[in-house]
Amino acid sequence: MIGVFDSGIGGLTVVRSLMERLSGYDIVYFGDTARTPYGTKSAETVISYSLENIEFLLKNGAKIVVMACNTASSVASHRVAETFDIPIFEVVTPATKQAVNRSGNLAVGVIGTRATIKSGIYEKKIKALKPAAKVYSVACPLLVPLVEEGWLKKPETMMIIKKYLHPLRVRQIDTLILGCTHYPLLKDQIQRKIGKKVIIIDSSIAVAEKVKSFLDTHPEVDHLLGKKDEFRLFVSDITEQFEKTARITLKRKVFLEHIKL
Amino acid sequence: MIGVFDSGIGGLTVVRSLMERLSGYDIVYFGDTARTPYGTKSAETVISYSLENIEFLLKNGAKIVVMACNTASSVASHRVAETFDIPIFEVVTPATKQAVNRSGNLAVGVIGTRATIKSGIYEKKIKALKPAAKVYSVACPLLVPLVEEGWLKKPETMMIIKKYLHPLRVRQIDTLILGCTHYPLLKDQIQRKIGKKVIIIDSSIAVAEKVKSFLDTHPEVDHLLGKKDEFRLFVSDITEQFEKTARITLKRKVFLEHIKL
Repeated sequence: MIGVFDSGIGGLTVVRSLMERLSGYDIVYFGDTARTPYGTKSAETVISYSLENIEFLLKNGAKIVVMACNTASSVASHRVAETFDIPIFEVVTPATKQAVNRSGNLAVGVIGTRATIKSGIYEKKIKALKPAAKVYSVACPLLVPLVEEGWLKKPETMMIIKKYLHPLRVRQIDTLILGCTHYPLLKDQIQRKIGKKVIIIDSSIAVAEKVKSFLDTHPEVDHLLGKKDEFRLFVSDITEQFEKTARITLKRKVFLEHIKL
Repeated sequence: MIGVFDSGIGGLTVVRSLMERLSGYDIVYFGDTARTPYGTKSAETVISYSLENIEFLLKNGAKIVVMACNTASSVASHRVAETFDIPIFEVVTPATKQAVNRSGNLAVGVIGTRATIKSGIYEKKIKALKPAAKVYSVACPLLVPLVEEGWLKKPETMMIIKKYLHPLRVRQIDTLILGCTHYPLLKDQIQRKIGKKVIIIDSSIAVAEKVKSFLDTHPEVDHLLGKKDEFRLFVSDITEQFEKTARITLKRKVFLEHIKL
C-alpha cells in the first residue's frame, strides 16, 4: 500500500490528489488527530511523532510513505530518511521545484504554519535551485483552525487572509506556495486576496505528481503496491468534525478506524 | 505541593489566582503542550490524557490536584475521582455555584470549547441547583488559537467574539460563565461585546477560591502542603510562544522543564 500520514485530516488533500493520479492504488492513511496540530510544536516533538507514525504505517502494509504534513516534511525529513529504508516522499521539495520552474520574476511567496516557516526550509531549497530567487515567507497559524471549523467563506476568514497576505502583495511576488495541506481548501479565497496573476502552487498536487513519476520509473517498487482500490483511514482520535471534513475532502464515504499510538 | 494541570498554558490563569489567594504555597504545574488542544478531541482521549497527567503530578509531589482545564473537568471528572484517592478539584462546579448565586434573572450564558459545550455539564450542574434556570451555551473554538497567537485586541478577534456572543445577547442573559481557562485573557473584550451589565464569572478565580476554603476547613490536608513559594512548571513541549505567554500570565520569571509522558 501507499502509506500517507499527516498531523490530522488536512493531509487528505494529498490522498485526493494521489487518487486522481494513481487510480486504484491501495492507500493506508494515518491522521494523528489526537496530537494535532503539529504546526505550533517544537521540531523535537514533531520528529518523534513522525517516526512513530511511519512505524505504524509500515506495520499496516505500507511499502512507500508520503509525509503529507508540511510541518513534518520541514523539520523531520532528515531523521526519517536516516531511520527507514524505504522510499519516503515529503511535500516540500516537489512544491519548491514547481515554484521555481513556473515563477517568471523569481519572487516567490510561501505561507505555512509557524513551525514550517521557522524552519526556513522552503527558502533554503528555493535558493539551492536558484540563488538569485527572492523568497518571502509568512506564518499563518490561524488558517488551520479556521479550516477545521469550516469557516471557509466567512468575512472574518477573508479579513485574516488579507492581513496575512499583505506583506506578500507589497513584495510583488508572482508565485505563492501553499505550504500547508489545509490551505488548498482556501485556494480560491487566497487567489482572490493575493491577486489573479499570482500562480498558486499546491503542495498536495506537487507531491502526488512526484510519486506518480517515481512509480513510472521504478517498476520494482510499483510492483510491491496493491491496486485493489483499498483505502484504510486510521486516526488517533475520532470526532464528528473529522468525519465530516474527511467526507467533504474525499467526496466519498469514509470509515474511520480509531487506534492509539 | 498543589498539583495543577491543563491541556496547555491557559491553566496558568488558575495558577495566578491560586498564587494571589494562597501566597507562598508550593505549586507544581503540568501543561500538556505536546498534545494541546483538548477542546476539539473526544471524551475518551481527554480522559486517558487526564489520568496520565495526574499520575505525573503525584510522582512529582502533588498532594492535591486542580484540573485547570475546563474540557478535562467537563468530561473526565468522574473517571478521575474513581481512580485517585486524594482531593481533586475541577473548574466547573465552583463557577456554576458562583453563577447561580449572582444571577438575578437566572438566564445564564456559557462559552467554552466544543468538547466542553457538547458535554452539557454546565447546563446539568446549573439546573441541578436551580431547576428554573435558563442556560444558553455557545462553543467558541476559535478563541483558544486567537489567544495563543496573542491576537487579543485585533479587529478580527473583536468581530469573532461579537459573532459568537450574538445568540447570548438575544437571550438577554445577565450572567456569563467563561468556561475555558484561556478566556480570562479576553475578559475585557468579552465584557464590551456582551454588555456592561452582564456579570462575568471567571472559572479560574472560582476554583482558586474553592481550594482556599477547602484548605481553611481541612487543616489535615493543608498540613501536607509545602509553603516555600516553590513553583515548578513542566510542559510536554517547549516553544517560544509558550514561554512568552507563561511569563505574561504569571508576571514573573518562569523556567520551563520539558518532560515526555
